[in-house]
Amino acid sequence: MTNDPTRPEARAPRGFNDRRARDLTAERQILAKVSEVYERYGFEAFDTGALEYADALGKFLPDADRPNEGVFALQDDDEQWMALRYDLTAPLARFVAQNWETLPKPFRRYAFGTVWRNEKPGPGRFREFTQCDADTVGSSRPEADAEIIAMAADGLTAAGLPAGAYVIKINNRKLLNGLLATAGVTTEGQKLAVLRAVDKLDRLGPDGVRLLLGEGRKDESGAFTKGAGLGTAAAEAVLAFTAAGAEGRSETLDRIANVIGGSPEGGEGLEELSRIDKALIGMGVAQDRAMFDPSIVRGLEYYTGPVFEAELLLATNDENGAPVRFGSVGGGGRYDDLVARFTGERTPATGFSFGVSRLASALRAAGRDLGGQARGPVVVIAFSPDDMAAYYGVVGELRAAGIAAEVYLGSSGMRPQMKYADRRMSPAAIMLGGDEIAAGTVTIKDLDLGRELSAGVTENAAWREQRPGQQTIPRAELIPALRRILDASK
Amino acid sequence: MTNDPTRPEARAPRGFNDRRARDLTAERQILAKVSEVYERYGFEAFDTGALEYADALGKFLPDADRPNEGVFALQDDDEQWMALRYDLTAPLARFVAQNWETLPKPFRRYAFGTVWRNEKPGPGRFREFTQCDADTVGSSRPEADAEIIAMAADGLTAAGLPAGAYVIKINNRKLLNGLLATAGVTTEGQKLAVLRAVDKLDRLGPDGVRLLLGEGRKDESGAFTKGAGLGTAAAEAVLAFTAAGAEGRSETLDRIANVIGGSPEGGEGLEELSRIDKALIGMGVAQDRAMFDPSIVRGLEYYTGPVFEAELLLATNDENGAPVRFGSVGGGGRYDDLVARFTGERTPATGFSFGVSRLASALRAAGRDLGGQARGPVVVIAFSPDDMAAYYGVVGELRAAGIAAEVYLGSSGMRPQMKYADRRMSPAAIMLGGDEIAAGTVTIKDLDLGRELSAGVTENAAWREQRPGQQTIPRAELIPALRRILDASK
Repeated sequence: MTNDPTRPEARAPRGFNDRRARDLTAERQILAKVSEVYERYGFEAFDTGALEYADALGKFLPDADRPNEGVFALQDDDEQWMALRYDLTAPLARFVAQNWETLPKPFRRYAFGTVWRNEKPGPGRFREFTQCDADTVGSSRPEADAEIIAMAADGLTAAGLPAGAYVIKINNRKLLNGLLATAGVTTEGQKLAVLRAVDKLDRLGPDGVRLLLGEGRKDESGAFTKGAGLGTAAAEAVLAFTAAGAEGRSETLDRIANVIGGSPEGGEGLEELSRIDKALIGMGVAQDRAMFDPSIVRGLEYYTGPVFEAELLLATNDENGAPVRFGSVGGGGRYDDLVARFTGERTPATGFSFGVSRLASALRAAGRDLGGQARGPVVVIAFSPDDMAAYYGVVGELRAAGIAAEVYLGSSGMRPQMKYADRRMSPAAIMLGGDEIAAGTVTIKDLDLGRELSAGVTENAAWREQRPGQQTIPRAELIPALRRILDASK
Repeated sequence: MTNDPTRPEARAPRGFNDRRARDLTAERQILAKVSEVYERYGFEAFDTGALEYADALGKFLPDADRPNEGVFALQDDDEQWMALRYDLTAPLARFVAQNWETLPKPFRRYAFGTVWRNEKPGPGRFREFTQCDADTVGSSRPEADAEIIAMAADGLTAAGLPAGAYVIKINNRKLLNGLLATAGVTTEGQKLAVLRAVDKLDRLGPDGVRLLLGEGRKDESGAFTKGAGLGTAAAEAVLAFTAAGAEGRSETLDRIANVIGGSPEGGEGLEELSRIDKALIGMGVAQDRAMFDPSIVRGLEYYTGPVFEAELLLATNDENGAPVRFGSVGGGGRYDDLVARFTGERTPATGFSFGVSRLASALRAAGRDLGGQARGPVVVIAFSPDDMAAYYGVVGELRAAGIAAEVYLGSSGMRPQMKYADRRMSPAAIMLGGDEIAAGTVTIKDLDLGRELSAGVTENAAWREQRPGQQTIPRAELIPALRRILDASK
């Protein structure tokens, strides 16, 4: 708009998003629905501040090796480094460590909060987004994991995901750890390499993963990825484990028992999954909503036991109509070591997290758009400054009846006012000229009808007769007439 | 808890607040109630990101002279300076400048958003808080100011402030500007000194302000503040103007007309207030909710016309029972130059902003605590791991009936479990031992009653008989029995 070098350019930093009514409304409805479920499960609302001391956040950010990598960091006036939180778990661990003595235990909280990641932005990849987390801190029981899973499932259902649209897949880190211990693998580095290899099952298939479990793999471009260095028997055991999933939870447990070998840690993992299964049955969560899947990894290093991933099953289409797998909408797991970073004492904890705008996208893909049409207000056309009192009388009456309404307050003539009302997605414009005021009447222009006609929706002649595009009626009939328009386009 | 130097200390940065259920619930209810009102007025929800480029934010932060003073700033990876937004107006101006061509005009938006101020924190003074703003951009009509005022008043009422608990005080910058122009004062520096002097009326009274309008004032400590340097006649005219407030809006307009002299800008200001008065009458906002007060200044330099301040009228008490004036809960005004920073073109704009937790405090002071008691869930005591299925059956039933409930998932015995339930503010604990399961009964302990008894609330013996502290009843009567407890303590 201007090239004056003394004026700042009007632009937002990359990866930061201006959000209009449709998105905000959808996210608020998710917040309302999910909060209701989580509170019914006995979780209390809780939130921390946006900034934490950098050392308190730690370096648990996935794939970040350097301190401050991936976070937005700045120095306070006492020179201490602070950073914008990159998730809601690290601040929770800080809070729990700080207040452990005075908290009711187990401490059960949920939070909707903004998080920031200093990563390369791209299409659909933002550096700021809202997460919803729920955690139970202070219970080592598998039933606490099961409850988180059941609650997550109920939350997704309440948010609007229909039955069969999602499933929560459950695994346990202890199973693979136990299997690797039996195979003689004990270093953290090698275990991590195995996890990374298994995480590529979806993309590379068992043959590709077999190479990554062994010496390594050369991709199509010729680039070589060093493998985990397992022997053939161990690699095959890992692959057999990841393929042990079956339709039923108890069948999957049986198949896992057959492949993980006899390590104590593996047995513990199996026992935990078995108790999770029982608790899920007790809470009425069948295998169509929560299943065991040994191929689930979850990237974060800090998980110590059960891990969960909520996957969208809907076949959706991208902007060009091509089918897309939507994939994960959230996940979580047990992280018994996070509070110990501060206190030195192991504190059991488990939780589930989902991205709120990601769930909103999933709901939109499922045809359950909570944001609605972002419908605008009824607009009263401003003809004359002398009649403002009459216009205010009308909008006051409409607002009192719960109908959003405004007097046009710009400085343009009638035609641009109509265009304004149409762009606001107003259901109707109201005209109250001098003649109408004198006669005690009012003219309503049905803008919804206009939009439907131009979209080719309403072409039935009989219907047109019942629903006039514009009508002049007695002033007292205004609200019923508007309600007919609002109801017709619901 | 630990002194191990390799472990980080669990603490939050100064001025950042961990917020529990009571505060979050109160703020969410304010958001819900106020949003409903604002949308009924035709304002759409809209929000920007937390970070803006520092040059886009500008230096409109009150009392900040150095760049980046008062904000949290950091450099992006391309070396551009960004800062956390310190209000919601500067990002709106950036957005409007960036998208002006494609926006419906006037653009009417409201936002609930977090803002950050890098200031010295203190008791009750945080460096992070939530604001709610509503603005109309693109209308120069005083009716747009009036609508913002009416909507703010309706919003405060909807949030729960009772009639007579608040008033919105309105002034117009043009009045004082006009008066000063007549007196020959034209430099911005001198005008600002006059505004600062008038802003101290509450604290210093007319005699103190008279000194600050003239040569200057020495306070009790002997420190000297240089004055605005007005002559006696001009200083008296300013004081007469600030004292022109009267009970009625039209009476105040008459008194202002008598004291501001004949400058064109003063006349314009008077005409605008007169149109605001008419529009407020048209929208049914009487002078008990919105009055004219020429002593209102509002600190921000960027206001160009009408300014508003919402003041709490309740006499409240501090923690020691001493009476406190609560003062302002929000304010706003017209700022026609803010978008021009980017575009070079004057763009009329007007808005109102309030601090959400400040309003929550005001509501608490007014005895309208929206957060309620932050009541906990019904807790099912866990006696035996073998009976978990029975416990889950109970919580499932309660949750389905809309009653928050949980099975105790810690590892403690019965007495600590009861203590846990009490600390969670649970209305009741449910005991389902082996005997009860076998007999098809359930035992309910009324924890609300326990708390009431220990608080000395319920001492009536007849009432005690009707409401047993603990009762064993058939399992099928559980929900009605719990409802009686919940209803009794509402």
